[in-house]
Amino acid sequence: MATVAVIGAGAVGSYYGARLAQAGHDVRFLLRRDYDAVAERGLRIESHHGDFALQHPTIARDPVAIGPVDWVLCGLKSTALAEAAALIRPCLTPGTRVLAIMNGLGIEERLAASLGAERVFGGLAFTCINRGEPGVVHHIEYGQIGIAHLRDDPDELDRALALWQDATVEVTRQPSLLRARWEKLCWNVPFNGLTVAAGGVDTEVIVSNPALRAEARALMEEVVAAGNADLAAAGSPERIDGEAVITRMFTLTDVMGPYRPSTLIDYLEGRAIEVDAIFAEPARRAHYLGVPTPRMELLTALLARLDPGTREG
Amino acid sequence: MATVAVIGAGAVGSYYGARLAQAGHDVRFLLRRDYDAVAERGLRIESHHGDFALQHPTIARDPVAIGPVDWVLCGLKSTALAEAAALIRPCLTPGTRVLAIMNGLGIEERLAASLGAERVFGGLAFTCINRGEPGVVHHIEYGQIGIAHLRDDPDELDRALALWQDATVEVTRQPSLLRARWEKLCWNVPFNGLTVAAGGVDTEVIVSNPALRAEARALMEEVVAAGNADLAAAGSPERIDGEAVITRMFTLTDVMGPYRPSTLIDYLEGRAIEVDAIFAEPARRAHYLGVPTPRMELLTALLARLDPGTREG
Repeated sequence: MATVAVIGAGAVGSYYGARLAQAGHDVRFLLRRDYDAVAERGLRIESHHGDFALQHPTIARDPVAIGPVDWVLCGLKSTALAEAAALIRPCLTPGTRVLAIMNGLGIEERLAASLGAERVFGGLAFTCINRGEPGVVHHIEYGQIGIAHLRDDPDELDRALALWQDATVEVTRQPSLLRARWEKLCWNVPFNGLTVAAGGVDTEVIVSNPALRAEARALMEEVVAAGNADLAAAGSPERIDGEAVITRMFTLTDVMGPYRPSTLIDYLEGRAIEVDAIFAEPARRAHYLGVPTPRMELLTALLARLDPGTREG
Repeated sequence: MATVAVIGAGAVGSYYGARLAQAGHDVRFLLRRDYDAVAERGLRIESHHGDFALQHPTIARDPVAIGPVDWVLCGLKSTALAEAAALIRPCLTPGTRVLAIMNGLGIEERLAASLGAERVFGGLAFTCINRGEPGVVHHIEYGQIGIAHLRDDPDELDRALALWQDATVEVTRQPSLLRARWEKLCWNVPFNGLTVAAGGVDTEVIVSNPALRAEARALMEEVVAAGNADLAAAGSPERIDGEAVITRMFTLTDVMGPYRPSTLIDYLEGRAIEVDAIFAEPARRAHYLGVPTPRMELLTALLARLDPGTREG
């Protein structure tokens, strides 16, 4: 049994934390918005794999109250990345590992700059999860999580996979964090981006509108090209199999129904959207590597302006 | 003195028609929305060149009531192009000329298919004109109109320029319709497009936001490349001087202030926007010619979805 702190217990953090608690781990949730609701009624997961609830989860408003743990699950939005280290640090011992279940590129590198690279892992959740009423999480579809280590250390990966051994979560071992991050962007760039830029529509609109579907594919091709250049520049022998990944992304999305990605929900609810980590950072890297990404650049410029978090500026 | 029918007397049609009336021509306006207001109070032009009014302009609700004229000024939106020929035909004699003061590519060719090519001219208005209250037009900035003939016939061009001889309008002779259309798209594609796609912002936001300004320039570069390929394919010796045109477009727009292009106003007021003529047709031609226009394609797909005229579909 491990001790686990969930820092950033939004929909994704709460879901995966609850799965670890269900498997017998000692999980402690850092809550803000939902603290009172969870204190009163517990944490309820309404999942397509079967509903369950944690009646009396350990919760805190301050990470100091959580204290040192074996594992930190960081489910913060990338827009809160600047505050992440300060929230995580009270939970650390020299042996604590940190799994960042977040979207975008450069997340683990940024955490490592404050926390040290050896302990940082990336969690790539491919899942449809939304917040419901306070204290309730809707797990709609999928749920797998790819786990990678910042230094791609196989022993560290073994340790991370062991944590999930008894949890009702499909975990995949990702030997290359960089490749896994770019592959995940093949979904997030087109679908988190176009659902916002096309006026606030769900993924079903994107895949069923021929012009938008073609744009989604073209964006994926830019992501693949940039990702493979990034892997080559990093000296990695890994490469993204573009056609296979693109086919998989469409296959998964075609059956997803009218799903609203987290960026769309943030946009519709007037919160800051993850422009920098999901769009601007990949576009910057591509530019630096000399890979043309005209669509990603246009989409990024539009989203930066549409972002409720910076629209004042 | 010529007889002139203004078919599609929105802001642009009303303005140029009023300038011809001011110069002594017999101008007849086809009106719908503003008919009662103009019948009661006349047509008022509030212009940065000085205000003026037509107290009792000749107006009609039906082109049959206008009857045959020397010149038709067609100021319809390109979204009404399918109905244009039927509205123009009652005003035609064999000698009638038609000047399409409209945005987009392929307008004159479409009119020529119904009306004959010899009589069709393109009018490329570079001006900031908006509708005010019914019967009032705001002429905010600029006002020049480039005139071209569909077959680039110099004698026909002489005839067209003669019409405007005494009017308070700066008219330029455009020896190549195709070049003039593409050059005008260098403004309309980025500014009509990005002001809508960036969430409904004016031109000042585009030119003062570095990322959006860079995207506007990149879109212009795509338009120039496509336009020059189109000119070459048409066997024309004309070429667009990209850097000169792009510099001019930014210079003109930088001093325009917070201008709202017609497409933005249509979008904000829930009317159909001119996606096909301004965006989709240029992108189709570029695609046919093998010129990559990734930004124009993405912008077109987004606008087609944002278009209030088709959002139901």
